[in-house]
Amino acid sequence: MIGLDTVRVVLVGTLYGGNVGSVCRAMANMGCCDLALVAPQNLDMDEARMMACHATDILDSRSVFDTLADAVQDCSLVVGSTAREGLYRQHVQSPREWAPRIVEAAGAGRVALVFGREDNGLNNEEIGLCSHLVRIPTAGYRSLNLAQSVMICLYELFVATGRYEPPAEKSIEAPSGVRERMFTMWRESLLAVGFMQADKADHMMLGVRRIFSRGRLTEDDARILMGVARQMNWLAGEWRTLTGEPPGRMPAVPATPNESGD
Amino acid sequence: MIGLDTVRVVLVGTLYGGNVGSVCRAMANMGCCDLALVAPQNLDMDEARMMACHATDILDSRSVFDTLADAVQDCSLVVGSTAREGLYRQHVQSPREWAPRIVEAAGAGRVALVFGREDNGLNNEEIGLCSHLVRIPTAGYRSLNLAQSVMICLYELFVATGRYEPPAEKSIEAPSGVRERMFTMWRESLLAVGFMQADKADHMMLGVRRIFSRGRLTEDDARILMGVARQMNWLAGEWRTLTGEPPGRMPAVPATPNESGD
Repeated sequence: MIGLDTVRVVLVGTLYGGNVGSVCRAMANMGCCDLALVAPQNLDMDEARMMACHATDILDSRSVFDTLADAVQDCSLVVGSTAREGLYRQHVQSPREWAPRIVEAAGAGRVALVFGREDNGLNNEEIGLCSHLVRIPTAGYRSLNLAQSVMICLYELFVATGRYEPPAEKSIEAPSGVRERMFTMWRESLLAVGFMQADKADHMMLGVRRIFSRGRLTEDDARILMGVARQMNWLAGEWRTLTGEPPGRMPAVPATPNESGD
Repeated sequence: MIGLDTVRVVLVGTLYGGNVGSVCRAMANMGCCDLALVAPQNLDMDEARMMACHATDILDSRSVFDTLADAVQDCSLVVGSTAREGLYRQHVQSPREWAPRIVEAAGAGRVALVFGREDNGLNNEEIGLCSHLVRIPTAGYRSLNLAQSVMICLYELFVATGRYEPPAEKSIEAPSGVRERMFTMWRESLLAVGFMQADKADHMMLGVRRIFSRGRLTEDDARILMGVARQMNWLAGEWRTLTGEPPGRMPAVPATPNESGD
């Protein structure tokens, strides 16, 4: 399976060490480790180290270049991130659009993701060195924090690798037989505790079924719900023993402020 | 079209003002403005303001609550973000998996995205208040910076709203007629400058066609390439006038170090 170990993150003219550190952490989150700085501007490395958190190894192994051309000379694709519009920035795509293409290229060779200065982005010469341009979709305020931009791009690439496997619930979805046993127990216990009368039971149970069928219901869930039914049933039996009668119906009460929506 | 104005970002027990500011900026990027803080811990508000950049209006209009229950009491869905695993955290989904569901709910009412403490996340009681749980997929190092987590979740929601329209290139893809005129001009000029001989032209032009067909080719692109052909043709004519002969073939040169891959 392809990872992001052939993806180089290139930061051009970065001003703030905190951003470089945050980029390192995002890289570690998404399985990427090749960081290149181009002409960094007196970075505060203490701040970088603090924001890198447990990703200081990426910070320590960074390479530094004088020019963008030097930093990307061994890369097949060079993808530049830009928030600005303009003649030479028309062929931008969103990270999701280009992610499969980049991942494919990263399987065959090295690719570079290039991010510009916090205040001024990439200049036209640097844009010219990029084979592809990306713009992160925004709702209004278009300028993202540098490390946030890197995170979204790497996240899209990581998802595109297909390496992410969703955590499987350990308890499987309850099979129909288990669900029906559970509903039978609920029917009995709702009758036993006096919640419903026999002539209304079929109708009421349709409502109960609907409630428990809205989402996934696992075997664990069904077991818990069967336990509730068993307890209701038991309590109704105890009541009957104590009083000689089945439980009655509770008197109607005015809705509480919360239930009436206040 | 549905936006994210009914999405409330809830930060529980946040320690660092810088993170709150970065969250505000991410919210502004993705079109979301309702920020709630639950029991914030002596936040450095100068740092928050600095990191919020041009999104200080969101910071200024934040609401503050004592408990998570208070902060989400008017929300239909309550989506908690968690990096940890455990019995009550099994039913997590990735942001991409749940985004359509959340956007649907946000069209009908208010929804909350809940993020825990930088050091300790959400506790079990807070997890219990969440109707849905989300975990951001990671390659290795699982703990994301707080503001990065918020950004990925809001980004997935924003993309799921369908409000993002990719920037259309102003120049349309060149129609076949324009492309063919361009190839005809290239054929003539490549012959004229002596790059190829007539007997090899058909074969060579297949290669040239392949090069210019790998990606999109717009009318603007085709116009530039026609200009190049015209200039080559003109120069070849000048040469012929000057020397009385067509341009010859340049002598073979050894590959430069760069071309040989060093």
